[in-house]
Amino acid sequence: LRFFFMENILQKYLIDLEPIGRRIEVEAGTTLLEAAQQAGVDLVAACGGTGICGTCRVRPLNGELNPLTPNEEEMLEPEQVKAGYRLACQAVPHGNLKVEIPPESLPVAQKIQLEGRQAAVALQPGVLAVDLALEPPSLHDLRADLRRVEEALGYNLESEPAALEQLSQELRRNNWSVRLAVRLSPPGGQNYRLAGTFAPGTPLLGLAVDLGSTKLAIYLVNLETGATLAQSGVMNPQIAFGEDVVNRIAFANKSEDNRRLLQTRVVEALNAALVELCARAHASPGQVVEAVVVGNTAMHHFFTHLPVVQLGTAPYVAAASRPLEAWAAGLGLKLAPGALVYLPANIAGYVGGDHTAALLATRAYPGRVRLLVDIGTNTEISLSSGDEIFTCSTASGPAFEGAHIHDGMRAAPGAIERVHFNEGKVHVSTIGGLAPVGCCGSGILQALAELLSAGVIDERGALRKDAPGVRQVDGRSEFLLVPAARSGHGRDIVITRRDVNEIQLAKGAIRAGIEIMLQKSGLQAGDVEAWIIAGAFGTYLDLASAVRVGMFPAQPLERFHQVGNAAGMGAKQMLLSLAERREATRLAGKAHYVELTVEPSFTGEFMKALYLARSGG
Amino acid sequence: LRFFFMENILQKYLIDLEPIGRRIEVEAGTTLLEAAQQAGVDLVAACGGTGICGTCRVRPLNGELNPLTPNEEEMLEPEQVKAGYRLACQAVPHGNLKVEIPPESLPVAQKIQLEGRQAAVALQPGVLAVDLALEPPSLHDLRADLRRVEEALGYNLESEPAALEQLSQELRRNNWSVRLAVRLSPPGGQNYRLAGTFAPGTPLLGLAVDLGSTKLAIYLVNLETGATLAQSGVMNPQIAFGEDVVNRIAFANKSEDNRRLLQTRVVEALNAALVELCARAHASPGQVVEAVVVGNTAMHHFFTHLPVVQLGTAPYVAAASRPLEAWAAGLGLKLAPGALVYLPANIAGYVGGDHTAALLATRAYPGRVRLLVDIGTNTEISLSSGDEIFTCSTASGPAFEGAHIHDGMRAAPGAIERVHFNEGKVHVSTIGGLAPVGCCGSGILQALAELLSAGVIDERGALRKDAPGVRQVDGRSEFLLVPAARSGHGRDIVITRRDVNEIQLAKGAIRAGIEIMLQKSGLQAGDVEAWIIAGAFGTYLDLASAVRVGMFPAQPLERFHQVGNAAGMGAKQMLLSLAERREATRLAGKAHYVELTVEPSFTGEFMKALYLARSGG
Repeated sequence: LRFFFMENILQKYLIDLEPIGRRIEVEAGTTLLEAAQQAGVDLVAACGGTGICGTCRVRPLNGELNPLTPNEEEMLEPEQVKAGYRLACQAVPHGNLKVEIPPESLPVAQKIQLEGRQAAVALQPGVLAVDLALEPPSLHDLRADLRRVEEALGYNLESEPAALEQLSQELRRNNWSVRLAVRLSPPGGQNYRLAGTFAPGTPLLGLAVDLGSTKLAIYLVNLETGATLAQSGVMNPQIAFGEDVVNRIAFANKSEDNRRLLQTRVVEALNAALVELCARAHASPGQVVEAVVVGNTAMHHFFTHLPVVQLGTAPYVAAASRPLEAWAAGLGLKLAPGALVYLPANIAGYVGGDHTAALLATRAYPGRVRLLVDIGTNTEISLSSGDEIFTCSTASGPAFEGAHIHDGMRAAPGAIERVHFNEGKVHVSTIGGLAPVGCCGSGILQALAELLSAGVIDERGALRKDAPGVRQVDGRSEFLLVPAARSGHGRDIVITRRDVNEIQLAKGAIRAGIEIMLQKSGLQAGDVEAWIIAGAFGTYLDLASAVRVGMFPAQPLERFHQVGNAAGMGAKQMLLSLAERREATRLAGKAHYVELTVEPSFTGEFMKALYLARSGG
Repeated sequence: LRFFFMENILQKYLIDLEPIGRRIEVEAGTTLLEAAQQAGVDLVAACGGTGICGTCRVRPLNGELNPLTPNEEEMLEPEQVKAGYRLACQAVPHGNLKVEIPPESLPVAQKIQLEGRQAAVALQPGVLAVDLALEPPSLHDLRADLRRVEEALGYNLESEPAALEQLSQELRRNNWSVRLAVRLSPPGGQNYRLAGTFAPGTPLLGLAVDLGSTKLAIYLVNLETGATLAQSGVMNPQIAFGEDVVNRIAFANKSEDNRRLLQTRVVEALNAALVELCARAHASPGQVVEAVVVGNTAMHHFFTHLPVVQLGTAPYVAAASRPLEAWAAGLGLKLAPGALVYLPANIAGYVGGDHTAALLATRAYPGRVRLLVDIGTNTEISLSSGDEIFTCSTASGPAFEGAHIHDGMRAAPGAIERVHFNEGKVHVSTIGGLAPVGCCGSGILQALAELLSAGVIDERGALRKDAPGVRQVDGRSEFLLVPAARSGHGRDIVITRRDVNEIQLAKGAIRAGIEIMLQKSGLQAGDVEAWIIAGAFGTYLDLASAVRVGMFPAQPLERFHQVGNAAGMGAKQMLLSLAERREATRLAGKAHYVELTVEPSFTGEFMKALYLARSGG
């Protein structure tokens, strides 16, 4: 018995903290609060972890734990228990575990890229408000409600029964004066469709969504003014079923139930976020009469419950690439009863409507020749020259999100985001100004650039063994970035040779993609007038460092534009204007997709691009 | 305690047997099997009521009963228990109760009107089969599935995501050769819509449904040949929430949950019936690519979940009267993923698409002037003369379905359907040739005609006290139709003065409606070349008797046509032909609806029509 007890104590478990993306190894018996603290992630824990304040709520996504403690039974609402919430200070994992830390349990919110430079758009929404004041029916005017409305409008109004139901109810509730939300169907066509019926004066709202693999960016927009009323970034709950889309496709292809789960979870998250946005904007989700949803092709298919089996194997062909309109209620989205969801064109199996939206949002940047790089686990690159667009997708991997890096983490409080070497000393700054606990993508990139400039690593990525800060552990070289004494968790923060290689692979994939796009267009890097860097990592990266390590060709920094969430901005533009949708379709149609895996020169370019400080520009 | 026991024994409960429509009063402690036997309804009970054969399955629709007995736990499948089934020999009511007797528990099936005279229709279905054989995608042909299909078709294919999902799956399952079910949207328009995707050669099927208040008539049709593959009549499960639409509207208006219940129950019944029809036809419900559903306006609103609050109060205005197309999946119907349901035009608040369908189905009857009478709880009447149609609805009540009649019952085994007086003797014949247990509508009507001819009742409906067979019970007159010794349940079967009055009210309402229609058209009864009597009761009634009691004017019997379920036939015609749908819409648009309650001459006509053997013709 004693022996068994010992074994239990010595057992170690891996705990993944999501959406922060931090992994920590803990001993059996450690609470989730202690695990987070060991990982340098501060949870709100007002009572100091004694189980009596209820503030350190977390949600285990898989794995075994101890049963609910009496403290938890007292502090958690029944709905929270039902949704799987635990108090981190009470929950003890019995094995490897993935746990979600909701934003309210973190003292400083995680950095989420919502803002982006939005182009000015002339308002031309797909759904318009039509105000009607009707005579009520009488024994001598027995016209049905729909006919009464259609005769007042002068045209037929197509409608799902659910929208008709609301029409009849609102007509009576508002004494026969209502505001209709009417949609031309198809856009520019000659059929009118009823999206919803409201009390007179009710503002009509729209929803723009960027379905990222990691985060969902959600914007609530007034369709009559174009104003963004509220916006929010929430974790993509699909992360519980696979960190990247490749893993999620594999999960989805295991069973129909799995694939359905991916669909319903993301829709539930959107519905919940919408309720919260509407509360902030003093509106109701029922006022949302149209939505535009963008995402990569896999997210697009997950969201619409299209099969993804063919996205998992060559030749990676989408079920649908052209723009789709789907009935929101049919997908489970709780909007106005007749609301549709517009999904812009996908470009290819790994280049989705999010890239179409980013192309749309960034088309106004100056210059005839523009290169758009949207950096993520897959990085999409488009080179536009005049009326020609070449597009590719390149597997840059999750290293820039802190994954597969020894002390990597996502851009969350305590993450090192800036690194400077000054006279042999390392200076780091962290998100939220906390003691450092790990390194996010932009920090690692800058660290590499500094190590390269200081001559600590060479162009192949090898660490100079005699350089200051470099040490050998188990026969492998690593650089000590922050010693244990100055870190937030009391352990060293290091950059290993393997970390350097991960970044080389990631930036090499991007650079090789850029080179192929230039070759296809018959252009040189110097011909590109605007280098547009989109996405969360792209927004925070240090451009000089990125050029220094050869991720981008050496070009004047003023030609680079870090534009934030261009996909989300493009989605908003399409929400506000049918002309923008047509332009997006045109852009997607013009894009020549280049499949890098069959491109003869790709391997050579990739090999060259692996070198740090690659010349050229 | 003893006293309490006595009280319990003396307690009596009312048991309603559905869909037979038989009510029986039983003492506490009586099993449902005994109650049915006392009511003269023979259930299948192979083991003689000892609880060991499991054949006497019934489903209590409301009320309290004893808990499941061990015999039931052994004999019933878990799904049957979940669906609320009991064994009639084991179930003991603890109060008033309504119980459904499924067809399989009756030794002789109940009479259900499915057949009707169907007009010859040139096939022009709304959904067509398009066979495609495509080149599979490759690394050098990365077109998305939908684009590949659209380019082969030469036109765009609109589609809900669920239909696209099936397209991608079936393309791969069938090696890129598939049969598409394609629909012009709107009919005759220029947009094509995908209803479903199938293996090559799969027949495309359609579903026609007549939603009766009491019964659902369902037809499975091959859209390519026009053949009816299978048909079925099942109880409308809404009967548990109200015997007629007026009661159901009141029930629906009590809460949103109630209204939703009426919708889901009828859809569940249709889905279950479809599975059964498909099994008989060796087909699958997924092959059904379109449905046509007709019903009175209340049933139409229940089915589509439109509000019915305005159908419950004057001026009885429908939410929608024109034809509607609804996505089948949105209503919960499990057909092909892109299948639509077509609902033809309603004519008024109490004249629905079922009457439109009946007008369509009977338009081919000879004669310029035709009068269509569709008899039910509400009787719809249309008088067509040349290009003019007058239509009304008249509240004939449920007497012809055996309700509100002392020994009334629906047309089920043991019901008297024919009555003849011969030299002072009464001869009756029953459905199924069983010993008589009650009288269905056609039996009561004929009995009245015979009593009138024999001088037993006078034209006001009074029973001659000295006539043979007439007796006084509690000061009220009644006629002994079948003495206890010859009945199936050992009790007398009688016709009371009140029964006569009920029939007078019912036939008077119909006759008054006919007279008003003639007045509106400026015609005499003799001008009508075809008297078309539709509906289940109309099919089985004895025409001479109906004329004898003054329900119809005295006209040559060869001008009368008993056409069966004309609404169901019309629904099938619309399923098979878009031209028929256009014609139905035209007929509904031409119908001048006359609201009898505001018609000045109605009351006078009604008073006149109450007399039995009203002159005129």
